[in-house]
Amino acid sequence: MNQIDQTNALATAPALPAVTTGPLPASSKRYVAGVIHPEIRVPMREIAVHPSAGEPPVTIYDASGPYTDPAVQTDIARGLAPVRSAWMAARGDCEAYTARSVQPADNGFATGTRLVPDFPVQTNPLRAMGGKAVTQLAYARAGIITAEMEYVAIRENLGRAAALPTPRDGEDFGASIPDYVTPEFVRQEIAAGRAIIPANINHPELEPMIIGRNFAVKINANMGTSAVTSSMAEEVDKMVWSIRWGADTVMDLSTGRNIHNTREWILRNAPVPIGTVPLYQALEKVDGVAENLTWEIYRDTLIEQAEQGVDYFTIHAGVQLHHIPLTVNRVTGIVSRGGSIMAKWCLHHHRESFLYEHFDEICDIMRAYDVSFSLGDGLRPGSIADANDAAQFAELETLGELTQIAWAKDCQVMIEGPGHVAMHKIKANMDKQLATCGEAPFYTLGPLTTDIAPGYDHITSAIGAAMIGWFGTAMLCYVTPKEHLGLPDRADVKTGVITYKIAAHAADLAKGLPGAQARDDALSSARFEFRWEDQFNLSLDPETARSMHDETLPKEAHKTAHFCSMCGPKFCSMRISHDIRAEAQKDGMAAMAAKFREKGEVYLPAAEVAE
Amino acid sequence: MNQIDQTNALATAPALPAVTTGPLPASSKRYVAGVIHPEIRVPMREIAVHPSAGEPPVTIYDASGPYTDPAVQTDIARGLAPVRSAWMAARGDCEAYTARSVQPADNGFATGTRLVPDFPVQTNPLRAMGGKAVTQLAYARAGIITAEMEYVAIRENLGRAAALPTPRDGEDFGASIPDYVTPEFVRQEIAAGRAIIPANINHPELEPMIIGRNFAVKINANMGTSAVTSSMAEEVDKMVWSIRWGADTVMDLSTGRNIHNTREWILRNAPVPIGTVPLYQALEKVDGVAENLTWEIYRDTLIEQAEQGVDYFTIHAGVQLHHIPLTVNRVTGIVSRGGSIMAKWCLHHHRESFLYEHFDEICDIMRAYDVSFSLGDGLRPGSIADANDAAQFAELETLGELTQIAWAKDCQVMIEGPGHVAMHKIKANMDKQLATCGEAPFYTLGPLTTDIAPGYDHITSAIGAAMIGWFGTAMLCYVTPKEHLGLPDRADVKTGVITYKIAAHAADLAKGLPGAQARDDALSSARFEFRWEDQFNLSLDPETARSMHDETLPKEAHKTAHFCSMCGPKFCSMRISHDIRAEAQKDGMAAMAAKFREKGEVYLPAAEVAE
Repeated sequence: MNQIDQTNALATAPALPAVTTGPLPASSKRYVAGVIHPEIRVPMREIAVHPSAGEPPVTIYDASGPYTDPAVQTDIARGLAPVRSAWMAARGDCEAYTARSVQPADNGFATGTRLVPDFPVQTNPLRAMGGKAVTQLAYARAGIITAEMEYVAIRENLGRAAALPTPRDGEDFGASIPDYVTPEFVRQEIAAGRAIIPANINHPELEPMIIGRNFAVKINANMGTSAVTSSMAEEVDKMVWSIRWGADTVMDLSTGRNIHNTREWILRNAPVPIGTVPLYQALEKVDGVAENLTWEIYRDTLIEQAEQGVDYFTIHAGVQLHHIPLTVNRVTGIVSRGGSIMAKWCLHHHRESFLYEHFDEICDIMRAYDVSFSLGDGLRPGSIADANDAAQFAELETLGELTQIAWAKDCQVMIEGPGHVAMHKIKANMDKQLATCGEAPFYTLGPLTTDIAPGYDHITSAIGAAMIGWFGTAMLCYVTPKEHLGLPDRADVKTGVITYKIAAHAADLAKGLPGAQARDDALSSARFEFRWEDQFNLSLDPETARSMHDETLPKEAHKTAHFCSMCGPKFCSMRISHDIRAEAQKDGMAAMAAKFREKGEVYLPAAEVAE
Repeated sequence: MNQIDQTNALATAPALPAVTTGPLPASSKRYVAGVIHPEIRVPMREIAVHPSAGEPPVTIYDASGPYTDPAVQTDIARGLAPVRSAWMAARGDCEAYTARSVQPADNGFATGTRLVPDFPVQTNPLRAMGGKAVTQLAYARAGIITAEMEYVAIRENLGRAAALPTPRDGEDFGASIPDYVTPEFVRQEIAAGRAIIPANINHPELEPMIIGRNFAVKINANMGTSAVTSSMAEEVDKMVWSIRWGADTVMDLSTGRNIHNTREWILRNAPVPIGTVPLYQALEKVDGVAENLTWEIYRDTLIEQAEQGVDYFTIHAGVQLHHIPLTVNRVTGIVSRGGSIMAKWCLHHHRESFLYEHFDEICDIMRAYDVSFSLGDGLRPGSIADANDAAQFAELETLGELTQIAWAKDCQVMIEGPGHVAMHKIKANMDKQLATCGEAPFYTLGPLTTDIAPGYDHITSAIGAAMIGWFGTAMLCYVTPKEHLGLPDRADVKTGVITYKIAAHAADLAKGLPGAQARDDALSSARFEFRWEDQFNLSLDPETARSMHDETLPKEAHKTAHFCSMCGPKFCSMRISHDIRAEAQKDGMAAMAAKFREKGEVYLPAAEVAE
């Protein structure tokens, strides 16, 4: 079944990129086996703390894949182990077949040294047998708990036992977040359309993850080559780099040449779901002339990418001909690339979008490979002035209609959202999406809460992202500092991912996700107890935390110092707090505290207190 | 009246720091004169746009002082022009007197080359005559519109005319934001205690600004030398640097030696209000031993700093003895330096705080110089776990009580707030502050919405800051990336300020501040029209925006290119939007749009549309 294409093999390849591997500081990997599916091994990251803390390691969600497991030898020319292949085989509803043959146009007619080499290992793709739906939604509706479902249930619990008391805090705005995630709960959420597991049957390297309002908020990192600047090696490296810092999914938004081959390298090395916008590649195939796009070219591109294993497609089928006039008086028109391409096509031909008209057929392709829909927001606002306008909400109505069609075909669906939205309009966006799209997961870009800070749009958008995540958005698409200005480099990717981990975690805390606060508590305890190493290791970016500390206090002795450079030893509030605690114990202060609280916090003369 | 102290003059000084001067790109300064007080000249910054835009310059708030005015020659050894001296003289209620003489302890007993030189120009301080209150609150209550009040009214309007229609948007949660700020409105807000103008009569270099819920949200930048690392020159430079990027006030949180002299250099060169925590200096005077603090030492420090011209004092008078037991079971105890110092003092002596007991006398000092209170939140939560707990809210109740006492003495008051607070608890903080403290302006540090990102706490806190600013907080104290790790350097100060300008502006947009969106709209128009230079110039940080763009497209020609490196020319959604607009005009699309809207956005067959 495996076949190596020698005509364009690695012999002609440039030196392979060195992706970053190895565990993060003080971290080790633990795998938890399934019960229904004993063969699954769900990764978690454990961060050890100093013995003086007397605390167990802190377990956190681990999106980084085998790259951080020192026991696994990775080789990007071989790809990751196809762990899910056996799961698909066990279900017995797919068949391997000879793939569509790669066309020169798939790689933008790149040849010779300009052509990214084929991935060395090639496998025949799978597809559903006999028109079946092989989607997680179809299984869920049939009452089947798949390996993927049990996997994500274990993953979300982070090693918590079902019996563990979970003190609840937070405001979830009507979500139904359980104390403990069971595989059956996952199945129900997927069956209801409230969550998806993007998991193409041709992406066996995937470590399944779930996107839904009743689970931890996830983040996506965008990358991709462009016509202006690009290299396959860089993109694979960025993918591995982004998941090292916590990206849950990665979108390959490549344009220009070599799209097909670059994507293959990414997919074979990706333990996270990979999303694409197939329209970008289709447009390359018609040399960038939007009006020359046809349903046939687009359809062929969907199959090409589904066979490769892309887990979700952004499809801008909600941009309809009659919406376009609604954008004419906008400050920033149409800012979605996919949206503008489709609008141009519609306008040129003065007819309805072929994506809208062929949506049924698109569903038939998606269900045969379990590619999830990410229904694109082609008319999202690109400026504060355009937020929540008629164009945006008209498209959202169409997306709600398309969601029902996709669900009827057993396809998994999430909905993309804005964009640029001032804070007071964010909740209206979320509420309208929930109402219009039947609670299908919302997947938003930011939103950016002001237009005035190019160069800092990771921050303008983290504000909106944290809020909309709290209100119910299931996945946040990161924004890097380069947004509006250029393509993100490796440093920008890391900044974007860390920033969005902050937003997602802030949202998890606010919506009251059980267990979310454990990491905050562990880090704050370390801070209070001057366990500097633990404080670094428990942080989202241990390297940066350590290097900032060491700028002013570089000596090793300062890592156990009971102060830092901010206040110096005499002024350290935390050191003084320890003195207070010591005195309090001497005085039986806890008992005093109880007495004060009882008396309603009225000041009592010392004599009365002493009694 | 002016006297130069030659014993420790500039002859012994190190080379003076070169502060950054000159206008920001495409920017010029415009001054608007008063009507009631024709002598006042209120600065505004105008950013010119390319002639092709056909738009007037964009006027924005300008906190940068004379340093960005090429017509003004600044010299930090002379200080800024004492523009307000004439205003105080005209009021005729102050008298000059011989200042308290500087003690060796004021500078931590630094001598010789380790002593920061005296500021070369020394002036006798002013104080109120005959026990009068010379505060803006006293004047406001007496029905007097001071020069300061008219100044801030003009400043807030940014050149808008009273008659200009101001389309209102936003949710202000019960604030009373006017369409147009009149001097009388300012007077009323100050009289009601809802706003303050921190403006010590001994800080004549000040360009007055207002802090209140019904005005633009302001930001504060902290700086200051510490025992571990310090230099006077760096601090003056950081102050000028921070206001260049938009800091509205600056707190000098110096500890260690040279506190007095460093502060003098900062004040004489500061066009923004300067705040301090007098307790820090008082503690230095007792060599860092909290229990050795006395009311007399503290009182003397208040007078020392009031005479120098400090505009607001953080005073932790709300930390009472009976609150301390409430902190014993916290994850991070007491994290406010001032709070922990006072708690230790109270506990050691087992008696009520001398700040609380002498609060009346403190008010008498404050009113004689118009130093504003910033009532410190000594028990603010230092971790997510401790947010909104009994200790925090018990102190807030005391702050409410102290606010009433200060107001009875005609003192201006703002209230400091947290800290670390998850998003779902932020609104409760704001609401409780408004209710408890009679709508005195709230001044918060962040809040940080998670504990897990040391190195990125400007971002964790910008999320909380934007939200609490929207809910009604009047001023946001910045947090830099170094928070929890070390002292901010120049780059950190800039990052902190820009991040907080984002949070404050996002809050202004959300609360519906009239005119706030003009800069967003101008920048977005520039973006849409590919006026790259305008996009850079209108941004909060033109240098960073430009350099990020130039990383991938450095050529000058690309500054007029109708694409950028993100998508390349073929995929540029904005370029396609222009094509669409052109086609739309050809087709009379605007008319079509109207028709579609009229028919309720139902899709119409092309035939019907064409009719």
